[in-house]
Amino acid sequence: MTAVEFTAFLDELATVSGDTILPFFRTSLSVENKGPGGGAFDPVTAADRAAEMAMRTLIRRNFPSHGIIGEEFGAERAQAEFVWLLDPIDGTKAFISGMTAWGTLIALTRQGTAVAGLMHQPFIGERFSGDGATAHYRGPGGARVLNARRCAKLSDAMLYTTSPRLMSGADRNAFSRIEEAVKLSRYGGDCYSYCMLAAGLIDLVIETNIKPHDIAALVPIINGAGGIVTTWEGGSAELGGRIIAAGDRGLHAAATQMLLR
Amino acid sequence: MTAVEFTAFLDELATVSGDTILPFFRTSLSVENKGPGGGAFDPVTAADRAAEMAMRTLIRRNFPSHGIIGEEFGAERAQAEFVWLLDPIDGTKAFISGMTAWGTLIALTRQGTAVAGLMHQPFIGERFSGDGATAHYRGPGGARVLNARRCAKLSDAMLYTTSPRLMSGADRNAFSRIEEAVKLSRYGGDCYSYCMLAAGLIDLVIETNIKPHDIAALVPIINGAGGIVTTWEGGSAELGGRIIAAGDRGLHAAATQMLLR
Repeated sequence: MTAVEFTAFLDELATVSGDTILPFFRTSLSVENKGPGGGAFDPVTAADRAAEMAMRTLIRRNFPSHGIIGEEFGAERAQAEFVWLLDPIDGTKAFISGMTAWGTLIALTRQGTAVAGLMHQPFIGERFSGDGATAHYRGPGGARVLNARRCAKLSDAMLYTTSPRLMSGADRNAFSRIEEAVKLSRYGGDCYSYCMLAAGLIDLVIETNIKPHDIAALVPIINGAGGIVTTWEGGSAELGGRIIAAGDRGLHAAATQMLLR
Repeated sequence: MTAVEFTAFLDELATVSGDTILPFFRTSLSVENKGPGGGAFDPVTAADRAAEMAMRTLIRRNFPSHGIIGEEFGAERAQAEFVWLLDPIDGTKAFISGMTAWGTLIALTRQGTAVAGLMHQPFIGERFSGDGATAHYRGPGGARVLNARRCAKLSDAMLYTTSPRLMSGADRNAFSRIEEAVKLSRYGGDCYSYCMLAAGLIDLVIETNIKPHDIAALVPIINGAGGIVTTWEGGSAELGGRIIAAGDRGLHAAATQMLLR
């Protein structure tokens, strides 16, 4: 399979997933909003499961030897050389609120390292992709190369996290030290924070309790854009846990030092 | 001017504003990103000013007797019977971060009461509008009537605020009481929170330090969708201040009581 064919396959996964999810988004604004029977219908779970199933089917058909780890249906062949990590709706709380800061995350890992990743927002119609060496954007604004921006000083940095309420007490205290040091701190990002960092629009993302499928797709995008993403301890981000991403290596070092103080 | 012509005029204002703003959004992803001279270029201020000027020109040409109050250029004929309130970019921090939770707010007030309002997100291409009696959506998902949802109990409610960091200490404590009582609390909404409430996707929005141009356009949308929006004290939301919006009147009463306790 050539690089072009492979890129086309990632895009096919994203398209199938997006087409599956969209009818479940903002169901109160849909023509039809019929749950099965009595009110227990959960659109985000239904969308998540249907999209993951559709992507699993495509992967099995094209790469029967590859492993798959998904948020909804667990692991199959997790010890394979190549393993796909799927999160059809990263940002489920944004999704159920009708907000657009959610996306589909698709990662391919080789022996534990993420070698390709894609974030797709089907409602807006934009995709962020990367292979660790380069990263690209396609959307309403056209197609562009993604480049993280330089910003070495905490006092100049724009910081995002999904919500400090997701952090334990000790982690929240560490995060608060960073918040007091940066120029701007904002909440509510989910996967978009990391993509905006790769696009050179923000400088720092700090989160905790991140699962591998929440971050693996974003690692090759951030690295491909010239940024850096690790655990707070400096380990491999693909394993999840407490994550820090920065557009600038100097900023990453300064923020990590302050977090672990 | 008929109702149809008037709706068309509101749409024309939104279109002109959106066309003016979009080239300044995510400038790091644009083909051209040339500031005038040395680095001091501020895309959000430039976009805000250009869009407000374009809307003011259209209003003056069509309604020379109307007043205009805008975020960037202040007030003209503020004592007129009809006054327009303009906020070209509500959610400037989202805008500069590349996030899409910002919008253009356009309100028409008659003797201080908002009689028509529109929120336009030109990047996504969606509009939320209302006249106090009805409210409508147009966007990628088609055109729909907006209806807020019933949710009488705080323990079932989904709450949004832009950021608790924007609140003073006492207000933040009051807000925390609500946060502990609701089902879900999320940050980062700006004008989108109120529109999602009108769309029946969330139940409660609580904010402080709201200016008239931040909220006036949203009042006829929320009311038109069957929701309610006031100050914490129950006063007219068009004056700004501490704002509470709810999709359900019972929830509004319960939350207001808890805020002022």
